[in-house]
Amino acid sequence: MSLDTRAAKPHEALAACLAEDMEAVNALIRERMASRHAPRIPEVTAHLVEAGGKRLRPMLTLAAARMCGYEGAHHVALAATVEFIHTATLLHDDVVDESTRRRGRPTANLLWDNKSSVLVGDYLFARAFQLMVGTGSLRVLDILSEAAATIAEGEVLQLTVAGNIATDEETYLRVVRGKTAALFAAACEVGGVISDMPEAQVNALRAYGDALGIAFQIADDFLDYGGAGDGIGKNIGDDFREGKITLPVIRALSRADGAERLFWERTLGRGQRDEGDLETALEILSRHGALEATRAAAQEWSGRARAALTHLPAHPIRDILDALADYVVARTV
Amino acid sequence: MSLDTRAAKPHEALAACLAEDMEAVNALIRERMASRHAPRIPEVTAHLVEAGGKRLRPMLTLAAARMCGYEGAHHVALAATVEFIHTATLLHDDVVDESTRRRGRPTANLLWDNKSSVLVGDYLFARAFQLMVGTGSLRVLDILSEAAATIAEGEVLQLTVAGNIATDEETYLRVVRGKTAALFAAACEVGGVISDMPEAQVNALRAYGDALGIAFQIADDFLDYGGAGDGIGKNIGDDFREGKITLPVIRALSRADGAERLFWERTLGRGQRDEGDLETALEILSRHGALEATRAAAQEWSGRARAALTHLPAHPIRDILDALADYVVARTV
Repeated sequence: MSLDTRAAKPHEALAACLAEDMEAVNALIRERMASRHAPRIPEVTAHLVEAGGKRLRPMLTLAAARMCGYEGAHHVALAATVEFIHTATLLHDDVVDESTRRRGRPTANLLWDNKSSVLVGDYLFARAFQLMVGTGSLRVLDILSEAAATIAEGEVLQLTVAGNIATDEETYLRVVRGKTAALFAAACEVGGVISDMPEAQVNALRAYGDALGIAFQIADDFLDYGGAGDGIGKNIGDDFREGKITLPVIRALSRADGAERLFWERTLGRGQRDEGDLETALEILSRHGALEATRAAAQEWSGRARAALTHLPAHPIRDILDALADYVVARTV
Repeated sequence: MSLDTRAAKPHEALAACLAEDMEAVNALIRERMASRHAPRIPEVTAHLVEAGGKRLRPMLTLAAARMCGYEGAHHVALAATVEFIHTATLLHDDVVDESTRRRGRPTANLLWDNKSSVLVGDYLFARAFQLMVGTGSLRVLDILSEAAATIAEGEVLQLTVAGNIATDEETYLRVVRGKTAALFAAACEVGGVISDMPEAQVNALRAYGDALGIAFQIADDFLDYGGAGDGIGKNIGDDFREGKITLPVIRALSRADGAERLFWERTLGRGQRDEGDLETALEILSRHGALEATRAAAQEWSGRARAALTHLPAHPIRDILDALADYVVARTV
């Protein structure tokens, strides 16, 4: 581990440590998303895969495997699997949310159409399963297919509770685990599984991914109300406009007076939003310290992620993962 | 095998032979489509799963396994897997085609919304993979995940060539293999694989499913122009309205004069369709015997399906599968 990589942001440090593996992952992704018969597939996916995402999820698989001393080649296929599942989810999310931007670029469903987004996402899911079948590990298959089901279930749950201002924190957490933490957790866990690590350490890896994913998503939900100009390309107020009940709103609702409750009921519950409502929402959040409370929750999960790491042997990559848990919530400060 | 089941329609005879197995499949489907946290999932799927489809695909898996003397329990899980993949495909198709009816009922995306159709379809895909992982057979996983990729690729290809009146029969056949025959073939093949049949017989099962699926789809494409009131709930002219280039049109185009070519160019190529155009299309198809030619193609594939069966040992179920190959094209007479 050079001093250079230590000084960099943790995801950059990870990328530097894992550069060779990531190159193999990228080559595999390009190879497997190709389609001899349907050239639209690589057109649509290249747009997403090359949009400059941080590739956090596949790096978690590579990092876990390397940290566990893995010497085989399956970590590359599994990292590509994880990225395919993530990309498929993004494509289907874009259909679902009718969002117009992702990572600062127009989403695939504006450049092409909903049809292509759905079907190309399906193709990537199928390719992801083929890739992991190639590893020959039934346990890995079990973990990743369970994660895929949890993701879909979480997304459906999110849809079902959108606009329901009675949503509690437990339900919110279930949505967050589905849409984000399930894949983070599985990505880390499979790295330990292919390395034949003892059960306790596989569990620690899974716990790290789970808590990191939750911290990451809570920070994201914070930034949706509080993180102007952070360069992640997300529009401020997207969640508000989509009627999503996220942690800042849940915290504000727990302290709402009658007028505020009517405001949330109208804007999120019935979806009747006017000019100036986002500003009012921000004022209410600020009045009740809801963003600070959200940040504190993200930091608590970040702490749990770091605590999970202490069950793993000392390793330079462990230090970077520790810093990464800090970093995902540092975006909120 | 009773005389009763022989007298029935072949899919009814199959259902009668496999009644006990199918009950186990239905119970497993209900169990696995349940979601503790997202009740919308069984709401959406029950609509499709209970819409009274013939369950042809899962029956093929059960039939192949029984015909091969299979004594285990994995055939039930694999039949449910096949039905989940099929149902997920239908849900995503409904988003894609903006079709308003399926099997004579309103499609899920009218009763709920596109969002639910996409996400619940994803959930079913994930559950399908979990189910097949449970069989512990990597070869089965390989066959079915390859089929899932072929399905998605075929659907994207269909999207890409829609409205392209230069589409040739080879491309049409590739689309048909993707959207229909890939799952028929895999459904039959895995029944042989779990029964540890010799390679030649596994290949014969696959060839049967492939040819049966192609015959079935060509007959469907025939009926879209010629099969009013057959009770399958498909609207006449759906393919025409969606600009799909199916075999009847390809055959008519191969004999088109200048005026007819302009007609197809306008209606399918540029999607400019007026009142009366469907009737004109039907007249042109009739003028060139395009529907007869399509029927003959379906019959040819039906013959190939029956020929494949001769490589399998004599068995009452083999006789029903033979009759089924006839039956899927008899709809066109």
